[in-house]
Amino acid sequence: MISSSDGVAGAELAGQMDALGRAAVQAARLLARASSASKDAALLGAAAAVRAQRDDILAANALDLRQAGERGLSAALLDRLALDDKRVEAMARGIEEIAALADPVGTVMASWERPNGLRIARVRVPLGVIGIIYESRPNVTADAGALCLKSGNAVILRGGSESSHSSRAIHACLVSGLREAGLPEAAIQRVPTTDRAAVGLLLSGMTQYIDVLVPRGGRSLVERVQREARVPVIGHLEGNCHVYVDRDADADMAREVVLNAKMRRTGICGAAETVLFDRDCPAAAGVVAALLEAGCEVRGDEAVQALDARVVAANEQDWMTEYLAPIIAARVVDTVEGAMAHIERYGSGHTESIVTGNPQTAERFLAGVDSAIVLHNASTQFADGGEFGMGAEIGISTDKFHARGPVGVEQLTSYKYVVHGSGQLRP
Amino acid sequence: MISSSDGVAGAELAGQMDALGRAAVQAARLLARASSASKDAALLGAAAAVRAQRDDILAANALDLRQAGERGLSAALLDRLALDDKRVEAMARGIEEIAALADPVGTVMASWERPNGLRIARVRVPLGVIGIIYESRPNVTADAGALCLKSGNAVILRGGSESSHSSRAIHACLVSGLREAGLPEAAIQRVPTTDRAAVGLLLSGMTQYIDVLVPRGGRSLVERVQREARVPVIGHLEGNCHVYVDRDADADMAREVVLNAKMRRTGICGAAETVLFDRDCPAAAGVVAALLEAGCEVRGDEAVQALDARVVAANEQDWMTEYLAPIIAARVVDTVEGAMAHIERYGSGHTESIVTGNPQTAERFLAGVDSAIVLHNASTQFADGGEFGMGAEIGISTDKFHARGPVGVEQLTSYKYVVHGSGQLRP
Repeated sequence: MISSSDGVAGAELAGQMDALGRAAVQAARLLARASSASKDAALLGAAAAVRAQRDDILAANALDLRQAGERGLSAALLDRLALDDKRVEAMARGIEEIAALADPVGTVMASWERPNGLRIARVRVPLGVIGIIYESRPNVTADAGALCLKSGNAVILRGGSESSHSSRAIHACLVSGLREAGLPEAAIQRVPTTDRAAVGLLLSGMTQYIDVLVPRGGRSLVERVQREARVPVIGHLEGNCHVYVDRDADADMAREVVLNAKMRRTGICGAAETVLFDRDCPAAAGVVAALLEAGCEVRGDEAVQALDARVVAANEQDWMTEYLAPIIAARVVDTVEGAMAHIERYGSGHTESIVTGNPQTAERFLAGVDSAIVLHNASTQFADGGEFGMGAEIGISTDKFHARGPVGVEQLTSYKYVVHGSGQLRP
Repeated sequence: MISSSDGVAGAELAGQMDALGRAAVQAARLLARASSASKDAALLGAAAAVRAQRDDILAANALDLRQAGERGLSAALLDRLALDDKRVEAMARGIEEIAALADPVGTVMASWERPNGLRIARVRVPLGVIGIIYESRPNVTADAGALCLKSGNAVILRGGSESSHSSRAIHACLVSGLREAGLPEAAIQRVPTTDRAAVGLLLSGMTQYIDVLVPRGGRSLVERVQREARVPVIGHLEGNCHVYVDRDADADMAREVVLNAKMRRTGICGAAETVLFDRDCPAAAGVVAALLEAGCEVRGDEAVQALDARVVAANEQDWMTEYLAPIIAARVVDTVEGAMAHIERYGSGHTESIVTGNPQTAERFLAGVDSAIVLHNASTQFADGGEFGMGAEIGISTDKFHARGPVGVEQLTSYKYVVHGSGQLRP
């Protein structure tokens, strides 16, 4: 039962969040009609402010790091949280790159004329108000704020409490850019409190204000959002990505692609977590040896263990695990059909690659695997908006609804139909 | 508290629905790769079966009508429920028209090559399994089943209990078309029970099977689905549509457009429910007189009442009401800005039209009104997939997420990225 003091605090929080929501809706109205020039000016101003305020940002980050250390956060979390000159400069450059993207708002996606003379156009418009809930990385404050502004959306940012000082300092730079450009400061708002109840309100208490929620973080966060949200969600579940090495694969290409897919960076969602070998795959032993020599632990079924004594035994759990570490599961399957069956059972629908010299086998795999991204003879680590030429992204969607794959500025828009007539009546 | 017998019944229902879900997922896999020819053959076979089984369908419908009459359903509901030779023939032709549409699945929406030689294509794929919950109109069984099949989706149909006999007979025709074409019969399934608990399971108990839900019916149904659904929803809320008659409107065009928008058919979601007049609009009196003479009740504010003694007083509620009847609310506003403010406050984001000879005023309205469809000098009753040249549709979405406006076969698809390489590694 809520004690009266909690009740008061709860009512206060609800009032705060309601004010954020109202301000966001008003800002969204103005942003929807804002010129590309004014949005880009705000972004360039924000990038300049990030550089100018670098010392304040680093000081705020040092405070976050000290508190996180006291609370005994893991080294991995501390690294995600930590900023330095290089990361601050990268943040400023990231905002400038988003400013340089084409403005999706107002783009005519399609237009046609009807026999009765009606001229119909499908035109891109912003989604409205976007809520973004994220964890420790403070740079998400800059990326997400900039992407939403570029796409004409107002955004309410809710970062992790462990990065709250850093996020506040970065958010101040975004707001100064908005102010200089004459755009509403409420275009990019930050939930000021670290009260966890604020997340619950974003998920289900502000449906009249928020058009879509984007969770950025670990599986537990994304699953909570998908479970509790009362507004649409663009979800980014884990990337349990596969590379299938076919019997017709070039041995050198297979080795290089699997090594790059697993080891280039092991901590990103496009990193390969399982390699599948055709039972008649001459390249298998070479791939396994190369992985082991690169310092990757290989957990294989019996057939893979038979290829190299250094391979340890895999269990059922390994097929489902996103290691995000120099560990890979390895299994022998019967032809591309066996590979597709394994991926359908254990995959997360993110990104899968086939290595083969046989175009028929490749097409079978590309058509049959139901993932956001399917590749032929290329590394799964290309799963990235920048690598796709789409510019910066807010993540890789594993949903099929609205946006799938890299979520860039275009995926943060909706559309409307604009119809020009000359007095047409429907018969 | 659930009695043991209910508990047994509940477990039985859950088992039934689980079986429907599993079968739908399996069918969806096959459908995603089915050829356009086989899908079209199934549709043409279904249309032929509807004609051949006309007497059975009408007999089943007579049974529904008798039971509905005994339960004292309104005349409007009875009319929606009733079938006759003409409506059965229209159903068959509707299925044939869907067969004649272009197949969206496999369409390359965009393709480009990266500097590193990667060839990227965004390709349309089905959404997967669609759940459709609808009310009395039995023809929705045919429309919805055919649209989902054309777009490569498996569908689970849950019609109103009052139309269950009609729906069963129509569903049998769709299944015979699937059978003849060698497609899985589970591609189009019908919830066999009229147990209301089945709706609850579709909304929140089958998230592992259902990719998207489409409610078709009144506001209460749509709101329940949007409130309780644990999967994405394509919503069709009411159409509280507006026509704004500007000071620069041609008087004859204004009269004809408003008459058509309101009176052509008063029961459809694209029918105008409120007409707004610029304070300095010479055409206003003529429009009001024409509406009254056409048998439309006009509920106006004081300024509109001053135009014609037959105008009755409107209250706040009238601005929010979707009459779906020969009644219209009428109000005088100050310029296009006043019209946009009224629409923003009371509109449902469906369809709004401006009548004006002034292009600047038109552009202001078309850009500023945030509705799925905005028209210039044309009737709101053009809000229809067929009138847009998109073919049959499952409804008009008032959501901004995924699909907005007419929801045809393209809007029932997602996409995936297919990437062809030659051994590219990410640096």
